[in-house]
Amino acid sequence: MTLSSLRLKKHADRRLKVGHLWLYSNEIDTDATPLKALEPGQQVVIEAANGKALGVAYVNPNSLICARLVSREPKQGLDRSLLVHRLNQALALRERLFAAPYYRLVHGEGDLLPGLVIDRFGDTLVVQLNTAGIQAVLPELLDALDKVLAPTTVVLRNDTSGRRQEGLELGVEVVKGAVSEPVMLEENGVQFTAPVLDGQKTGWFYDHRVNRAWLNQFVAGKRVLDLFSYVGGWGVQAAASGASEVLCVDSSAAALERVAENAALNGLHEQVSVGEGDAFEALAALKADGEEFDVVILDPPAFIKKRKDMANGERAYGKLNRDAIRLLGRDGLLLSASCSMHLAPERLMDVVRGAVRHQDRHGQVIFQGHQGPDHPVHPAIPETSYLKALGVRVFRD
Amino acid sequence: MTLSSLRLKKHADRRLKVGHLWLYSNEIDTDATPLKALEPGQQVVIEAANGKALGVAYVNPNSLICARLVSREPKQGLDRSLLVHRLNQALALRERLFAAPYYRLVHGEGDLLPGLVIDRFGDTLVVQLNTAGIQAVLPELLDALDKVLAPTTVVLRNDTSGRRQEGLELGVEVVKGAVSEPVMLEENGVQFTAPVLDGQKTGWFYDHRVNRAWLNQFVAGKRVLDLFSYVGGWGVQAAASGASEVLCVDSSAAALERVAENAALNGLHEQVSVGEGDAFEALAALKADGEEFDVVILDPPAFIKKRKDMANGERAYGKLNRDAIRLLGRDGLLLSASCSMHLAPERLMDVVRGAVRHQDRHGQVIFQGHQGPDHPVHPAIPETSYLKALGVRVFRD
Repeated sequence: MTLSSLRLKKHADRRLKVGHLWLYSNEIDTDATPLKALEPGQQVVIEAANGKALGVAYVNPNSLICARLVSREPKQGLDRSLLVHRLNQALALRERLFAAPYYRLVHGEGDLLPGLVIDRFGDTLVVQLNTAGIQAVLPELLDALDKVLAPTTVVLRNDTSGRRQEGLELGVEVVKGAVSEPVMLEENGVQFTAPVLDGQKTGWFYDHRVNRAWLNQFVAGKRVLDLFSYVGGWGVQAAASGASEVLCVDSSAAALERVAENAALNGLHEQVSVGEGDAFEALAALKADGEEFDVVILDPPAFIKKRKDMANGERAYGKLNRDAIRLLGRDGLLLSASCSMHLAPERLMDVVRGAVRHQDRHGQVIFQGHQGPDHPVHPAIPETSYLKALGVRVFRD
Repeated sequence: MTLSSLRLKKHADRRLKVGHLWLYSNEIDTDATPLKALEPGQQVVIEAANGKALGVAYVNPNSLICARLVSREPKQGLDRSLLVHRLNQALALRERLFAAPYYRLVHGEGDLLPGLVIDRFGDTLVVQLNTAGIQAVLPELLDALDKVLAPTTVVLRNDTSGRRQEGLELGVEVVKGAVSEPVMLEENGVQFTAPVLDGQKTGWFYDHRVNRAWLNQFVAGKRVLDLFSYVGGWGVQAAASGASEVLCVDSSAAALERVAENAALNGLHEQVSVGEGDAFEALAALKADGEEFDVVILDPPAFIKKRKDMANGERAYGKLNRDAIRLLGRDGLLLSASCSMHLAPERLMDVVRGAVRHQDRHGQVIFQGHQGPDHPVHPAIPETSYLKALGVRVFRD
């Protein structure tokens, strides 16, 4: 197949050369190669200003990130063969990392597959196609998955808001097999079911696996509060690790039903209770009731979705951390997470600093966690590193 | 005891108020309270510009950091009683963290004990007094340690270069008991001896404990190169975790003798070999010999000791990482560490990015490690967070 070309402005090849995969629309020499002439998802050869071919990218003229590199070999586009190769590379890493088939199999750019996310639950794969370019190769992708993994079930969770910006339709579809609920998974030795069709994102957050494993070491005999609990990833694992009592709070009744099921699945229904409501209101109510916890887990949704949310988002993280710390006893443990890519690790540290100081406590950060190894970071693309979790001993002097 | 006062300039109380412990000499109202009138190590009450007492600090008129807060209670100086309290707080944390008595017991500001470092090797404590203020309370500190821990042996490793800036003498002294070599320790289930009298720093680097534990998961059956091995913390643990072959390289013959002893101590003398020499020269020689490794560990000394070393230091990290990556096979693992406080985590990420790109490989950062939990970070003092370790899968596409 012969591909069209996309010509870069002078010096606009610099980012690709240092390892990045993205091009922005203002970097294209649109006089030489009009972006608007290209179809969303179309593959093109990227050329430097001097005409040198740099590789193959897929494009979206309607997106600020107008092209994402899929190969540095100008003759090799993103086809079934390259997909098989990349999936095999991704699978080889996970098989080295994990004994059981429950993990993120593909983490987009971090696995050199821009726009593609695949979470694996045994023989069930849950796929997010986040760009027009990856949507365009869906038939080849399904073929490649069959060759590499032969899954019994493939779900497309194409209800991510990012698809709207790409001009793609939103929806959820089972494209292979059938989802025979419940879909099981295992994390840190604990059993769960994940709502892959109608839960958040792909149904489960594998990204906190190592942070949960860290916290699990310190909860035996403790009273634990799990805010924004979703289906109980943190809370049920804490109970399985010996916590005497766990309260999971979430605003979704459906998620809390799953918490109860997941607790029961592990014989922990007596240790785990649930409370439905807004996290901030729950914190205030617990304080008013004189409740106290040894461990508080804060794993909120992204408060800073876009750069313009920064000030409001930081205020929200601040209030959340302050209110949580008020519920800790004399010598407590705070697990404070943020999945906002825009919140730099040192800013989360500063949120914690402000919160402990506001409550006239001392804080010792004894853990700085990140996303698990099945969410590899591309070292040239800071956006691929988004998750932070601080473990903080909070005490009164 | 009545303490002198040190008056701050207007607004100079801000840093203390947000949680920090340090004051700089240009923040003092020296007309009201001349710094030069104070003795190095003397304790004073810190006053805001409006006269409000903010707490007690010890001073050093000869240091840029002219005062470090020891208490926010104006009547409570750093005496035996406060030392006992802080040591008990520090010990309580470590006893929660570790089953065996081998850890950093006090991490300076991170344990609210500015200038003080204590590493524990069972009944032997190795102490660094890094400021005039903590040196001044040595008798009270030794008393407090007797009360809290009753160590059999206390070594002062007062040969840190920082003491020179504080106007303190350098030297090593056994102030209690006697060092009956070898001093034993255990880390991640592996036995070691540490040269507490004449090794680097306190004789051992507990700070990499969790990073080593992470790497140990992935070395079974692998050929491992451990550069700047010192006494074998990484290399011997890798062998204990099943590495088929480990080469430890260091410029110190004494350190390499310890590597051999530590390997033998764990019955691993056949798996671990040593090479004496400069790391950069060793990398070149190994490449010339066509050697290849599955795992390369880079744990160099701080290449950036002061801010002015930044450019040269980053170049050195760059070359080191490039040369190391050349020795990796098709799908290898790089552990790239930096203990330079001045090298921000994102800069080390960039060093790795540049190195993999330079060698035309791909990198996936699957681990972002930091100092272990016995080196708590003070959330208001970025300087207390200094250690980085990236785990990077390096492969050819």
